[in-house]
Amino acid sequence: MQPDLLNLHALHHFRTRSPLTHCMTNDVVQTFTANVLLALGASPAMVIEAEEAEQFSAVADALLINVGTLTASRAQAMRRAIESAVAVGKPWVLDPVAVGALGYRTRFCQQILVLKPAAIRGNASEILALAGMSAGGRGVDTTDTAASALPAAQALARQTKAIVVVTGEVDYVTDGLRTQTVTGGDPMMTRVVGTGCALSAVVAASCSLPGDRLETIAAACGWMKRAGTLAAAQSRGPGSFATAFLDALWELGAQQ
Amino acid sequence: MQPDLLNLHALHHFRTRSPLTHCMTNDVVQTFTANVLLALGASPAMVIEAEEAEQFSAVADALLINVGTLTASRAQAMRRAIESAVAVGKPWVLDPVAVGALGYRTRFCQQILVLKPAAIRGNASEILALAGMSAGGRGVDTTDTAASALPAAQALARQTKAIVVVTGEVDYVTDGLRTQTVTGGDPMMTRVVGTGCALSAVVAASCSLPGDRLETIAAACGWMKRAGTLAAAQSRGPGSFATAFLDALWELGAQQ
Amino acid sequence: MQPDLLNLHALHHFRTRSPLTHCMTNDVVQTFTANVLLALGASPAMVIEAEEAEQFSAVADALLINVGTLTASRAQAMRRAIESAVAVGKPWVLDPVAVGALGYRTRFCQQILVLKPAAIRGNASEILALAGMSAGGRGVDTTDTAASALPAAQALARQTKAIVVVTGEVDYVTDGLRTQTVTGGDPMMTRVVGTGCALSAVVAASCSLPGDRLETIAAACGWMKRAGTLAAAQSRGPGSFATAFLDALWELGAQQ
Repeated sequence: MQPDLLNLHALHHFRTRSPLTHCMTNDVVQTFTANVLLALGASPAMVIEAEEAEQFSAVADALLINVGTLTASRAQAMRRAIESAVAVGKPWVLDPVAVGALGYRTRFCQQILVLKPAAIRGNASEILALAGMSAGGRGVDTTDTAASALPAAQALARQTKAIVVVTGEVDYVTDGLRTQTVTGGDPMMTRVVGTGCALSAVVAASCSLPGDRLETIAAACGWMKRAGTLAAAQSRGPGSFATAFLDALWELGAQQ
Repeated sequence: MQPDLLNLHALHHFRTRSPLTHCMTNDVVQTFTANVLLALGASPAMVIEAEEAEQFSAVADALLINVGTLTASRAQAMRRAIESAVAVGKPWVLDPVAVGALGYRTRFCQQILVLKPAAIRGNASEILALAGMSAGGRGVDTTDTAASALPAAQALARQTKAIVVVTGEVDYVTDGLRTQTVTGGDPMMTRVVGTGCALSAVVAASCSLPGDRLETIAAACGWMKRAGTLAAAQSRGPGSFATAFLDALWELGAQQ
Repeated sequence: MQPDLLNLHALHHFRTRSPLTHCMTNDVVQTFTANVLLALGASPAMVIEAEEAEQFSAVADALLINVGTLTASRAQAMRRAIESAVAVGKPWVLDPVAVGALGYRTRFCQQILVLKPAAIRGNASEILALAGMSAGGRGVDTTDTAASALPAAQALARQTKAIVVVTGEVDYVTDGLRTQTVTGGDPMMTRVVGTGCALSAVVAASCSLPGDRLETIAAACGWMKRAGTLAAAQSRGPGSFATAFLDALWELGAQQ
């Protein structure tokens, strides 16, 4: 990571602005995603009906599209929300959960990719699949390391003009030319559902901040990894880890 | 609050009767809502298919309608559930999440308002909007104080014959003539998703109890605020707060 | 229970194989179900769109069908997932939440019962209703003891060739000829939403392991009861209980 380990300046901005973040995400991680955003000082809102999603994404500061439990009606509402956000210049972020492994969502993500996401956050298998370089993983877990997907991430970033984040033991954040590496975290983060999905929501919220988007997103990855490290040191299993993780996000930068 | 701070008599009734509470609520807060009801001794059940919702709300002791993630099919099922509850004299409660800010749900809530809710629980922006006195807030967070919405709450109560609860730093519970004020709580309650939505479920369950409904609902508001105060004193962030909040609800009145 | 109280051999197998478990479950318990599976070392995945559910259940190691928040579109996707799993010889498990009490899901469960579930996990009222021996409970809570439903469970097992698990203060696991009894646990397990539903997911994952299925499922029931006992000893209410429960599952057998 950068010398300024957590980019506390960006974190201060994040807390002060409290980005109103429209999360169209999967059913499994909605509560945790909302609580992660709240712990970092953002304002989450989940609005899913097509008319309302269209209306709301023009008002919100950023939009998250996560296809983990995609359905036909959800896909239609997402498309309208994206188009509405794009029309008024609000950033949207794609989390291509299990793309490559499952057909319907893979086709959907390929279709919406032309609507110019500000960022894409996935694990190695998902980024490889989205870049057309792999048949994808088995289910939601990746079978590749983040480093192995870095060339695919860079190619995808150049192709889409999005910042691409490929996460794993190490996170890589790239715009196709520059690449930032984010280390830290703890394996326990993979034993609590939704840490990756929640990161995507934080990335979406971060895209609404001014400044160098690549650096802000890398900072966001760093906040989550730091909270993971702190939480692992204070917990004895995934139950207490999840609790300590939210507390750590809350306390991050509080000593400033 | 009343001299009897928590109305432990009502709490004892609540625990003893264990109201079977049919919650048609938003996707984000379902788990927390169920766990809050369970911690207070009630029996939550979430039934959403139209035929079943109609069938179940006639059997349950109370029905909660929360429009946070409303969809067309959910709206249809809610309407059937409400009509079924009303037909057999069971109380139903409306939580008009983000009404005023979003069109589809605002029209829906205006339509079902004629079906005589026993109570309505919202924040200031939502109550102002439902009473036709404001264009509503930005997303789910209120931009008004509860006190500023009290006249709207009283007017709405007189118009609908419902008990109207407008919550915030201070909660107001009114039937349009009498108004109870409930103080306490902690700002951390706004950093965990679902505390307001869960209160609406507790209000619904409370409506099934005998006695003065205004006082029972005010008591329910007091239980949540007291648990919030206790939890804040025992936690270091929103993760441990949510855990301590459920424990505090569980322990409330246990010393009796 | 068996002399080997927890069948740590089966637990070791479970952790090593990390069964990819396709959970089509209700909206209220998805997060907790995923976290329970993760704490025990399994890989949960929730896929609900019909085409994808069909595709995924052929790849996953086991499929869970839980009808707690059934809708028409969900029912259609479930049916396709089951048929796909059966076609390739993957086990599926039925959790008949509130069957008997509600019409739509009761008809659906009766229809899919012919698709040969590997196991069925329910409370006494649900098993009695599924076996055609009762009009069912009131909502999701059982009004019968597990022991009173044992003859129904045995008859249902003989009729369907499934292992039937009827849970309560004592769990019974039967194939219609042999019956295992699993004791332990704690009443606090009924004050956290989803412990029963999560057990059904663990049962589904267990069905993918080699060996005597009856014994593996009884072991799975034992893991959950043991974690409940341990968590109750370390908690002061349902909030800290849920946290400690996940930690206890994580630590189970770790001393090996």
